[in-house]
Amino acid sequence: MDTNLNLKAFQQLSYGLYVVCSSDGDKMNGQIANCVFQVTSSPPRIAVSLNKENLTHEFIQKSGEFSVSVLEESVPMKFIGLFGFKSGRDVDKLSHAGHEQGVTACPVVTEHTLSTMEAKVIGQFNVGTHTIFIGDVVSANVIREGTPLTYDYYHKVKRGKSPKNAPTYQESQP
Amino acid sequence: MDTNLNLKAFQQLSYGLYVVCSSDGDKMNGQIANCVFQVTSSPPRIAVSLNKENLTHEFIQKSGEFSVSVLEESVPMKFIGLFGFKSGRDVDKLSHAGHEQGVTACPVVTEHTLSTMEAKVIGQFNVGTHTIFIGDVVSANVIREGTPLTYDYYHKVKRGKSPKNAPTYQESQP
Repeated sequence: MDTNLNLKAFQQLSYGLYVVCSSDGDKMNGQIANCVFQVTSSPPRIAVSLNKENLTHEFIQKSGEFSVSVLEESVPMKFIGLFGFKSGRDVDKLSHAGHEQGVTACPVVTEHTLSTMEAKVIGQFNVGTHTIFIGDVVSANVIREGTPLTYDYYHKVKRGKSPKNAPTYQESQP
Repeated sequence: MDTNLNLKAFQQLSYGLYVVCSSDGDKMNGQIANCVFQVTSSPPRIAVSLNKENLTHEFIQKSGEFSVSVLEESVPMKFIGLFGFKSGRDVDKLSHAGHEQGVTACPVVTEHTLSTMEAKVIGQFNVGTHTIFIGDVVSANVIREGTPLTYDYYHKVKRGKSPKNAPTYQESQP
């Protein structure tokens, strides 16, 4: 077996596509994330990996809370673009997306969403360009039945790209 | 929005299905994991979440190395059962599965596998019943083209179950 780094190997890892939100006082923001996963079942605990340059990252560090919305497969590309390719420093994203106030102070996106979770951060780990936030889930709701959007479907069927701050970003994208 | 914990919400998170291997001297072991993800692209860095009771967890803590094999969709259930529902304390799993020696000391499963990665641990985070291991990828290879097995496909099409030590285990499974 060769010692090499074929970046195509990483493209075979499977992910979903989510909106992760947080708040700082009366300011709210959210961003697309593919790296959301359940790390333990008892207690229910989830993790997200976010780029340190992102505003949502800053808000989670300040508030210690985040929400996750599982996007439905039929979500319009424009909606993904709003949360994935614009910065909350330039645009009030939540004013363009259906959301609710959760049990935490975080906004919870409910538009084009199958289920939602809210979590309180119990640990954060510096992994270089990104931070992994671990949170205890304090609320979890199913909004509607449907097929969750996967990262694979987003790329292959919707022909979506990865933004530069995604953990999966590659200079030359498929 | 209610304050409740609907565990069905967690079922809409998307994952792949992988074999994660490690070694301890001349002992080798591997296990099924769904929680494998790329956390940064520069440098290429991956994370896995494993149950503390598992032998592979013990081996990774000792050796500081692990490999990941991305399973193909057509992998037989028996193969998943070997790595997912048996303990390396009872069975020499690798003697029943095609594998190679990688650039690390880890065995790298190549049977029913689309791509492989080997990583050296740079951090490990205690998240309760599980540990998240973060590793710098030192080798990544594509073995063959194909469709990666997803956790969703495993459950819905292959009718697979989650073992008790999976981060996604629920008492009453769908």
